Amino acid sequence: MTEPSPQLSSPRSERVRQVAALGRRAARERSGTFLVEGPQAVRELLLHAAADAVALYLSEAAGARYADLVRHAQDAGVPIWSCTEAVLVAMADTGTPQGVLAVARRVDVPLEVALDALGEDGFAVVLTHVRDPGNAGTVLRGADAFGAGAVLVSAASVDLYNPKVVRSTAGSLFHLPVSLGTPVDDLLGACRARGVRLLAADGSGTTLLPDADLSGRHAWVMGNEAWGLPGEVLERCDQTVAIPIRRAESLNLAMAATVCLHASAAARSATA
Amino acid sequence: MTEPSPQLSSPRSERVRQVAALGRRAARERSGTFLVEGPQAVRELLLHAAADAVALYLSEAAGARYADLVRHAQDAGVPIWSCTEAVLVAMADTGTPQGVLAVARRVDVPLEVALDALGEDGFAVVLTHVRDPGNAGTVLRGADAFGAGAVLVSAASVDLYNPKVVRSTAGSLFHLPVSLGTPVDDLLGACRARGVRLLAADGSGTTLLPDADLSGRHAWVMGNEAWGLPGEVLERCDQTVAIPIRRAESLNLAMAATVCLHASAAARSATA
Repeated sequence: MTEPSPQLSSPRSERVRQVAALGRRAARERSGTFLVEGPQAVRELLLHAAADAVALYLSEAAGARYADLVRHAQDAGVPIWSCTEAVLVAMADTGTPQGVLAVARRVDVPLEVALDALGEDGFAVVLTHVRDPGNAGTVLRGADAFGAGAVLVSAASVDLYNPKVVRSTAGSLFHLPVSLGTPVDDLLGACRARGVRLLAADGSGTTLLPDADLSGRHAWVMGNEAWGLPGEVLERCDQTVAIPIRRAESLNLAMAATVCLHASAAARSATA
Repeated sequence: MTEPSPQLSSPRSERVRQVAALGRRAARERSGTFLVEGPQAVRELLLHAAADAVALYLSEAAGARYADLVRHAQDAGVPIWSCTEAVLVAMADTGTPQGVLAVARRVDVPLEVALDALGEDGFAVVLTHVRDPGNAGTVLRGADAFGAGAVLVSAASVDLYNPKVVRSTAGSLFHLPVSLGTPVDDLLGACRARGVRLLAADGSGTTLLPDADLSGRHAWVMGNEAWGLPGEVLERCDQTVAIPIRRAESLNLAMAATVCLHASAAARSATA
């Protein structure tokens, strides 16, 4: 028999305000925690990074509907709070967390740990100046789907713990090593020092994707949504690779990253 | 010397309300016109489908910044209205059309015309039950980028003239033949009758993408974001193809379509 969960019913309580504050970057950085919203992302947190889960908040209806989440949280010793819908809406950034929300500790790892995860033949993706939360989240999903060894996010990119990014990763944030906050220059330098070939993904590239050498350790370097990769980044990369397309500007950043990561995965399975 | 543009300054005028009404499907269907918002999409309209442009609305600042749009509209005989920012905000669905907005006549073509556009060796994408505007728009971009011959959208999918879809196509809507509104069953039947092989893109597929035969005329059949393709659609397809991924549910619909369309394009250039 389990203890009844403590109840939260006032949207104005101190705890609710503290959780809601995690919608803001300053509060996330101060506390070292972030919001995980919705049953899918919370499930991946509890399955893959339960040790980082701080608390689970859910409505009575969601507790019944997502009994697996309650069970996983109990198994992992994660405190569970039963909340009114008004409390969940007050805490959530999205307005519609489907009755489920968790607070988790940061899950990023030091850059060297992420690079170690590449092993002998792994590939990574580097986000240098990606600003759109949906794009960052989609790139993480692609990295997860296609078996990338790590995702390396520069200090100049969107905060990966922004609730919009977390939501758009659909849980992939908890599946592979992610390193955050290194300045672009240091990030590229660290890759090179470890023998990770840098492939800039850029429409200006003279090497077409089908002709690119995707064997061995490499990282796809992605630029900004609007202005791509600056010259000083392109110069530090080993190769600039373009996806053959019929019309310029017809691929957005997330689509380009998806195609590049898929190509790296396909090159591996073809030789496996 | 050109005539000065007529002015629109009252957000409550009849014309402004008629344009704003195009945010709603009923008004679009009644008038046979739709909204094109922002300089990028408007430019593609004027460059690729000027005959379908009904009117161009822009602020004084935008008229100066995007002089090419004014010139293209003048060349094509498209009426230009000079508007206050308040008028543009009142007309736009997005709230931020960057000072530029156009009204255009529907650009879709009959299904048979779209199928003709596939030629001997073309490929298409079929949206059976896609509901998210961003996904539909991204699939259109991918079809454009990778040289698909047509996009075929069933009656059960999101309205392609929804301003959110139009915006997310980034102008691709004006680049290739799009057919709309055919019931799923008739759409699949028409493809089969024309010898277009139907490849269902679905994680349940037993054929993996690298093993799929992408030669000859074919169409990628995409399902719903949440529940994929129903059994009765899968049964009518020639093959069900899965993208090899490390984890189920890690690709969203737009990413899967991007990878499949890229594969069809790559198969063509490899044999070219």
